[in-house]
Amino acid sequence: MESNKEHEVATTDAITKAKESSGKGKRVRWGVPISKSQSSSSSPRPPAARWRKGVAIADFVLRLGVIGAGIGAAYQMGTNEEVLPFFTQFLQFHAQWTAFPMFQFLVVATGVVGGYAVLCLPFSYVCIVRPYALGPRLLLMILDIVMMGLITTAAAAAAAIVYLSHNGSQHANWIQICQGYANFCQTASESVMLSFVAAFFFMCLVPLSALALKRN
Amino acid sequence: MESNKEHEVATTDAITKAKESSGKGKRVRWGVPISKSQSSSSSPRPPAARWRKGVAIADFVLRLGVIGAGIGAAYQMGTNEEVLPFFTQFLQFHAQWTAFPMFQFLVVATGVVGGYAVLCLPFSYVCIVRPYALGPRLLLMILDIVMMGLITTAAAAAAAIVYLSHNGSQHANWIQICQGYANFCQTASESVMLSFVAAFFFMCLVPLSALALKRN
Repeated sequence: MESNKEHEVATTDAITKAKESSGKGKRVRWGVPISKSQSSSSSPRPPAARWRKGVAIADFVLRLGVIGAGIGAAYQMGTNEEVLPFFTQFLQFHAQWTAFPMFQFLVVATGVVGGYAVLCLPFSYVCIVRPYALGPRLLLMILDIVMMGLITTAAAAAAAIVYLSHNGSQHANWIQICQGYANFCQTASESVMLSFVAAFFFMCLVPLSALALKRN
Repeated sequence: MESNKEHEVATTDAITKAKESSGKGKRVRWGVPISKSQSSSSSPRPPAARWRKGVAIADFVLRLGVIGAGIGAAYQMGTNEEVLPFFTQFLQFHAQWTAFPMFQFLVVATGVVGGYAVLCLPFSYVCIVRPYALGPRLLLMILDIVMMGLITTAAAAAAAIVYLSHNGSQHANWIQICQGYANFCQTASESVMLSFVAAFFFMCLVPLSALALKRN
């Protein structure tokens, strides 16, 4: 009976030590949820976690890029106005971004996307601290796709107007207004380019999120 | 020696039976890679596998939708032409999709996207048969995002032209050509709508792929 009890105590000690050691393993793999670490404690993968953290940091940096490009595009287009000192048969005195619904749409869309990117920063930071967090990552990814659709649509529609302003359309008898309003067209082009840059950042953000979500 | 041989035969039989039974088990959990099934044989997850298969089937169906919408949009716009029996000061005899670069872009983009969706079907089928396959799923997702960007850009640019054709722009002195070419504008609108439907399908495809990629 004595030896049996000793054996039991030894076994319990061994279990406690094993638990402690798995607990330490958990602390090394920063921010892993307990359920995850328990299921994968037999094969800890620090390189994968490091790689996921790198992805999360790239995500954060890309979001900063989206904020810059989005707010820059909104500001460029939202202050786009040119007053000419002369008046011809076809051109009026005043060119303003509100004259074209597509430019209005671009200002709204880039503003929304820029604001969204600002609001996302805390979630993105959570994904750096906890690279295994699934919820915020999936939420960000789905919203990113919607925002990518929004800004791509706005940028392409505005690009079509900028193209027409530069080149006109002989078949439709639409004149090239950029011959008169060179600065207006220049600023609109820059805004459209910035919007496409933001759309490209989103195009990079979505696969990054998918990579962070995927199982090894 | 005799008994030894008999023992060996019995052991081989047992191994063969065990292999057969594990093979059967594999066959029940459709298309699970051997390495996966071995590693997770201690905790089989048929509901997760079934759920992944459902996602893969939805992916396949959405791709069929993309083929329909994409090729339909390309056909609609690619045959869009209207000849008027009269001639006015502003309108010419003939309206054709090739007159607008954005409509040409739409035809090319929808054709490319439709062809891409056809080429993707075998990969999508592989994902139904092997719901745990990571490679084809990730490849499809990244290409899907690029194609979503392409078709969204094309559809939005063409939509801007269709809008201008319908409403014109007083500030730029661009006239409403749809007053003359009603059928041309109607067909172009339908094509743009179909393109946006295809873009929406892609917008659903990307999160589906991400869901299939994500770890449990």
